[in-house]
Amino acid sequence: MENVDYPGRWKRCRAFMEAQDIDLLALTPGPNMTYMTGFLETPGERLLTALFPRDGEPRMVVPALYEEQVHREGWIGDVRAWKDGDDQAAFLLEQMSDAAGLVNVALDTRMWARFVLMFHRALPGALLQDAEGLMQELRIVKGPEEISILRRAHEATDRAMAAVVESLEEGQVERDVANTIRNALMAAGADAASFRPIAASGPNGSQPHYRFGDRVLRRGDAVVLDFGGMFAGYYTDVTRTVFLGKADDTQRKVYELVKEANERAVDAARAGTPAEEVDREARRVITDGGYGDHFIHRTGHGIGLEVHEEPYIVEGSKRPLEEGMAFSVEPGIYLPDRFGVRIENIVLVEDGRARRLDRYPRDLQVISS
Amino acid sequence: MENVDYPGRWKRCRAFMEAQDIDLLALTPGPNMTYMTGFLETPGERLLTALFPRDGEPRMVVPALYEEQVHREGWIGDVRAWKDGDDQAAFLLEQMSDAAGLVNVALDTRMWARFVLMFHRALPGALLQDAEGLMQELRIVKGPEEISILRRAHEATDRAMAAVVESLEEGQVERDVANTIRNALMAAGADAASFRPIAASGPNGSQPHYRFGDRVLRRGDAVVLDFGGMFAGYYTDVTRTVFLGKADDTQRKVYELVKEANERAVDAARAGTPAEEVDREARRVITDGGYGDHFIHRTGHGIGLEVHEEPYIVEGSKRPLEEGMAFSVEPGIYLPDRFGVRIENIVLVEDGRARRLDRYPRDLQVISS
Repeated sequence: MENVDYPGRWKRCRAFMEAQDIDLLALTPGPNMTYMTGFLETPGERLLTALFPRDGEPRMVVPALYEEQVHREGWIGDVRAWKDGDDQAAFLLEQMSDAAGLVNVALDTRMWARFVLMFHRALPGALLQDAEGLMQELRIVKGPEEISILRRAHEATDRAMAAVVESLEEGQVERDVANTIRNALMAAGADAASFRPIAASGPNGSQPHYRFGDRVLRRGDAVVLDFGGMFAGYYTDVTRTVFLGKADDTQRKVYELVKEANERAVDAARAGTPAEEVDREARRVITDGGYGDHFIHRTGHGIGLEVHEEPYIVEGSKRPLEEGMAFSVEPGIYLPDRFGVRIENIVLVEDGRARRLDRYPRDLQVISS
Repeated sequence: MENVDYPGRWKRCRAFMEAQDIDLLALTPGPNMTYMTGFLETPGERLLTALFPRDGEPRMVVPALYEEQVHREGWIGDVRAWKDGDDQAAFLLEQMSDAAGLVNVALDTRMWARFVLMFHRALPGALLQDAEGLMQELRIVKGPEEISILRRAHEATDRAMAAVVESLEEGQVERDVANTIRNALMAAGADAASFRPIAASGPNGSQPHYRFGDRVLRRGDAVVLDFGGMFAGYYTDVTRTVFLGKADDTQRKVYELVKEANERAVDAARAGTPAEEVDREARRVITDGGYGDHFIHRTGHGIGLEVHEEPYIVEGSKRPLEEGMAFSVEPGIYLPDRFGVRIENIVLVEDGRARRLDRYPRDLQVISS
């Protein structure tokens, strides 16, 4: 990404490594590598890693076919390329010859086992640990260049949501709604969908992570629409639930309860408040309404270069919210074999309070065809 | 997936585990888990694993919010669910209490480091190893139900390629071509794109894994179109290179060389032939043509539940090709700052010979607007 101060990020990272006594950080394609190097790629079976020795300069070990791209998109000049057919583990070992004495080695939380085991063999004396704490600390508070991307990304996602709800009608198949979602995201400028979209109608909505299938949308269905897009490496993630043709009393009651839980939780999310308090606030509303057993997941998750990242809005997290944190607030109620309702906003803590980045309306909508 | 004999796959897997003296196999969301359990999910930060003890029955450890889905989509009855807020590592340890004495533990090659380290702590005496060899052996020869999916998936991808080439014209932006690709894939029935599509025009084509950007397509460009879709968990992956308005002599020469390399390699791919021979055949054509230094990747990769899997068509792989193997043949020539050409087919070994699953024409095409 342009206008990002990568050497500055490395300097900050190195300070964290010193504080935590980490000798070497090894990253893998994914959000952490993108954050630290500017290089955006999906993980694969070929060894591709960025090495950050606390007492040295960063280097990258890459398959030859990525060499040109790494130089173009990244800022790290020391790039060591291996060719298809080479022994990857041996090549890695060579590049790490000056690392033989290192003790505390932090590996990217997403590094595949095949590469973890290569590092394990290359550094037999090292204590391997999960770099997740370190990297999440670095990434948890968004910088101005990141906030600006997230803001524009959520405006674009609002446009996509409007287009999707606009086009919804009885008789459509969930799969077609999912296609509409993807097209609306692309039309709004996304590089890709954040994840396989959720278009869960009627009873399918009672599985929080159901995606879409061949069910036909019917009058009286609650339809859970949960999707997001990737914009310059950053993700969006929003959910609205709408009703087709009519909503019965139970559906209305459940909807209003979820909406109130969402609003009370957003209101509770202030700088200095522990994350779990926000979860408790949402849960209290739903429990008081009699549906506590049907809110079966945490209230939210941070978002940025990952769809799910710190801070998690969950019981047990005493982490105080801070200026610049971005996360979801997404209470839901799931009634098996009947329907589900979820309302998800992404909020940013600014001037001490959580403010919604996505603005598509949350009021109960009954769509008549 | 329906009509798949999962207990039969487990029986075959167990026989491999016995032969390789593996006590426990732990899988993670991804192709291996889909193959063995029927459950299709993307990897995430929550612990979700399928455990196959050689001397016991399979069980799954899942986040509570997936419990219903795992029961619906999978065949494994023993599902142990943990709730957000629980200590995942401790929960895993409990579920593995009967595994304390196990020595040889094979982990899914894609398992994230965070979970590898949890297993490492839960089984301090165990030798952790990469399950890749085991799983690839199981998956390398496709069964009839898999071949039938791959066949239909490539017919659909042919339709998408035809639609994309049909719509191509000067003045378009690469990004729009990428959107056209995605729409064409969805219209052809794909559940998702296999990977971010490649629409690399002019000089961008010289980076094999460049995706797309804001470059405007111009007369005289070679345009590399490389994409595929996911169909019922199985992937397609095809490449064609077309020219806009005109193709100069160098472009024509390079194109015909790549085409000949593709054809000679497909012809060389017979049951019993070592995989590296197919790579050598493609490379020989290109080297004899004077462009050996510009064919900077292997000739191909297997395909199925992964876009890249065994068998790899690469120097050093002496593995004989077998009936039922499916893989790509994709030679390319990359001239930095000028252009690139790649022609990629997916072939299936049947009746002793490689036959193309994708049939969109390979002849040099100059598109006039």
